Amino acid sequence: MYIETVKKTMNLPEKVRIFDTTLRDGEQTPGVAITVDEKIRIAKKLDKLGVDTIEVGFPVSSPGERKAAREILKLDLNSSICGLARPLKKDLDAAIDCGVDYIHTFIGTSPLHREYKLKMSKEEILNKAVEGVEYIKDHGITAEFSAEDATRTEFDYLKEIYTAVEDAGADCINVPDTVGVMIPTSMNYLISELKQEINIPISVHCHDDFGLAVANSLAAVEAGAQQVHATINGLGERAGNASLEELVMALTTRYNIKTNIQTELLVDMSEFVSRITGIKMPPNKAIVGENAFAHEAGIHVHGVLQKAETYEPITPEMVGHTRRIVLGKHTGANAIRAKLDEYGIELNEEQFERVFNQVKSLGDKGKCITDADLKAMAQTVLGKAKKEIVKLEGFSVMTGDNVLPTATVKLNIGGQTKTAAKTGVGPVDAAINAIQSLVSESADIELKEYHIEAITGGTNALAEVFVIMGDKKGNKATGRSTVDDVVMASVEAVLDSINKILVER
Amino acid sequence: MYIETVKKTMNLPEKVRIFDTTLRDGEQTPGVAITVDEKIRIAKKLDKLGVDTIEVGFPVSSPGERKAAREILKLDLNSSICGLARPLKKDLDAAIDCGVDYIHTFIGTSPLHREYKLKMSKEEILNKAVEGVEYIKDHGITAEFSAEDATRTEFDYLKEIYTAVEDAGADCINVPDTVGVMIPTSMNYLISELKQEINIPISVHCHDDFGLAVANSLAAVEAGAQQVHATINGLGERAGNASLEELVMALTTRYNIKTNIQTELLVDMSEFVSRITGIKMPPNKAIVGENAFAHEAGIHVHGVLQKAETYEPITPEMVGHTRRIVLGKHTGANAIRAKLDEYGIELNEEQFERVFNQVKSLGDKGKCITDADLKAMAQTVLGKAKKEIVKLEGFSVMTGDNVLPTATVKLNIGGQTKTAAKTGVGPVDAAINAIQSLVSESADIELKEYHIEAITGGTNALAEVFVIMGDKKGNKATGRSTVDDVVMASVEAVLDSINKILVER
Repeated sequence: MYIETVKKTMNLPEKVRIFDTTLRDGEQTPGVAITVDEKIRIAKKLDKLGVDTIEVGFPVSSPGERKAAREILKLDLNSSICGLARPLKKDLDAAIDCGVDYIHTFIGTSPLHREYKLKMSKEEILNKAVEGVEYIKDHGITAEFSAEDATRTEFDYLKEIYTAVEDAGADCINVPDTVGVMIPTSMNYLISELKQEINIPISVHCHDDFGLAVANSLAAVEAGAQQVHATINGLGERAGNASLEELVMALTTRYNIKTNIQTELLVDMSEFVSRITGIKMPPNKAIVGENAFAHEAGIHVHGVLQKAETYEPITPEMVGHTRRIVLGKHTGANAIRAKLDEYGIELNEEQFERVFNQVKSLGDKGKCITDADLKAMAQTVLGKAKKEIVKLEGFSVMTGDNVLPTATVKLNIGGQTKTAAKTGVGPVDAAINAIQSLVSESADIELKEYHIEAITGGTNALAEVFVIMGDKKGNKATGRSTVDDVVMASVEAVLDSINKILVER
Repeated sequence: MYIETVKKTMNLPEKVRIFDTTLRDGEQTPGVAITVDEKIRIAKKLDKLGVDTIEVGFPVSSPGERKAAREILKLDLNSSICGLARPLKKDLDAAIDCGVDYIHTFIGTSPLHREYKLKMSKEEILNKAVEGVEYIKDHGITAEFSAEDATRTEFDYLKEIYTAVEDAGADCINVPDTVGVMIPTSMNYLISELKQEINIPISVHCHDDFGLAVANSLAAVEAGAQQVHATINGLGERAGNASLEELVMALTTRYNIKTNIQTELLVDMSEFVSRITGIKMPPNKAIVGENAFAHEAGIHVHGVLQKAETYEPITPEMVGHTRRIVLGKHTGANAIRAKLDEYGIELNEEQFERVFNQVKSLGDKGKCITDADLKAMAQTVLGKAKKEIVKLEGFSVMTGDNVLPTATVKLNIGGQTKTAAKTGVGPVDAAINAIQSLVSESADIELKEYHIEAITGGTNALAEVFVIMGDKKGNKATGRSTVDDVVMASVEAVLDSINKILVER
């Protein structure tokens, strides 16, 4: 309601173009390198997501960058394909030779960049910028010009250089907050002032050094900017760039501004980029984090179960996410009742009280409670003791530099003792292979997911292993174990999970 | 410079109070539970950091919460200690019984909360709020009142309820953006309007559902808010709350507003909370992320080496961080030259060219290059082949459910063959113990850090092990290995690292 009031004071465009720089700024994230093949896969997904432009890289910088640009151009995507280039002939030619239809050219304009980096005068820089734009336009290519570090550049000079490139035929000017120094109010002011001088579309490119990249981009849109640069997961140099998923959802749902983004693909896109770059988003990342639509506290769960809007600003479905009710020390009775209903488990008041207190007490000890844990607790209370249908009676494993990793297991399955020995690529793999070979004789259960949490500390630190096993009927169960031997932890987690599935049937 | 211009239009306070809710909102993060002992350790650090108020929890919700509050109060910290409570006698008494000197009481005021959650009329809610505040003040305790979901509450009602609690003696009103629906412009508008009605200090509490919690908090400060709620690492329900570190650094360096925070402790505080909650911040998190002051791209490194301000808005020292130059595919010649200088390695132009091309080519393949890798490359080019002083000649390890994990190693150390067998808590620990026992005879090298990267996939996925070994003289080297057997990967990484140290001496 308050947004409706303030919108009247804004100069909002009807639609905003999304210029994605995941393959350029995102890849410049220290420690991240994306292969040509991975770049192609990301580009295909960005195109499906609906970004207007994909900046594929900085062609002059390496043969790999040029190859990626060429291969992506062959895909003939809907998104326009842009290459980054300084306004130098060799940079521009490298981009042109790849066949891009869009060139983003940039040169530093702030006093710091002029004096310490470029060692060039204002006039020299302006001339270079104009020459660069003219060269791009002479080749019939779309030209976007960035005054690098614009937000620390004197306004008069900024106006002069942007006007000059507009006159030289640039299609769009971009205002980069290169070092992330702006606040939304100052960004809004700067774009409003430029808007009075410049007739071609204005784009912005914000960095997140104070966590304000998205807010600064939105402030620019409020002043009339028609394009925003963003990256998936906010990847980029230092603290990164504006996060595409936050930006798009704010534009769409806070401002009712259109973009071409298929918002329901955002979570999948974020996870894909996380897997490729190895940079995992924290659970509390807006829109795409694991917790973005998760609720644990009693008061919140109670509200969400009554009506999701009480504690959710948008539906999880809008971004391809799912709602999760998490059990823990803050869980109220309502959440536990809802979960038990879901499983079809009926408890009387006294039985319920016992389960509820167990959840609280585990929570106070710092433990998280999974759905399977809750089921197991309820079943115990109902007198259905957790059955160990499969019991470990003996286990040994051997590995070394000239030894084929080999495991021997002795399992008691429903009263019968069985043994098996199997090899594997390592001791964990051998052990799981041996267990699976025995269990598969009586049940078609197989490993679906295996996960070791990152371990830091000594070699005697606790290893946390998490597995998901499943059968062909679609029954699935998690298994978890935390012991100081990574091999034993894996064996215990797998048996835990198998027993849960077998009890279920 | 643009901030100076817009500051003239703002109603900025001289100083902002920081109200930390890490132990309450932060702990409500789904999946997070903090034990009483951990809460005490966090509270001590928050006090040292300089937060004005610590919200220690929601006393009525569990015995653990009450115990934590009591134990923290015993520490007699400088920060005031606040308990959360609904305006219900049992909630308020639970907080009062703990002995807190500050109570934060809240009740939902928006149509959604009134109708679906509370099922109470506007009048009933207002009366509850007033009664709650009066009860707190009757006990001589500082009272802060929150109209939950204020940002979706009709302004007239909001004004009415806040005025009523002010009249009832509240010390501060808090405006929570409970579901994170606001944008900075609307937050600024709402606080400006309230400021005209309310004479006691105004506080804000923002959620990060669109990544705008920090920006919305700052917009409130621009309108005259004198206190902000924040959490370390932005922890909290769903996408979390305003991140204290971003907020404080923006206030301090963007607005020149004072807070009582010792900013140079921020990185340490963030890491401490990450370790306790298990929620790791991504490298591109502003201020405290691993990459916040890291540079890889050639253009950026060149600039930073000339003058750090070209690509850094504040110094890393201000927040207790350090600058890192990272090598990778975007690395330019300047960064590599700077690193080699640092190690005292001199190469001629042709040798340098060979190293430079190796770095670029590894980068194009998606590899990251550590400092040790660069040194090894330079030494190879200089004809100093990587020496394997310690060579693995034989290795085997055995573990199981009734087997004490035991490893046997045969090493060739400087030409002499030696063998040892050692046990450990698991096969990895046993293996490393055996290697250390042999190496320690000739060198005092020990394991400083051991790290397995999280493995997801099958049990045959590649395990990436990273170790740091060091000797008493302060020589240190990293070792890294990626093979599909986690035990062999650990052995290889340790030997890799030991050899690097021995070559060094």
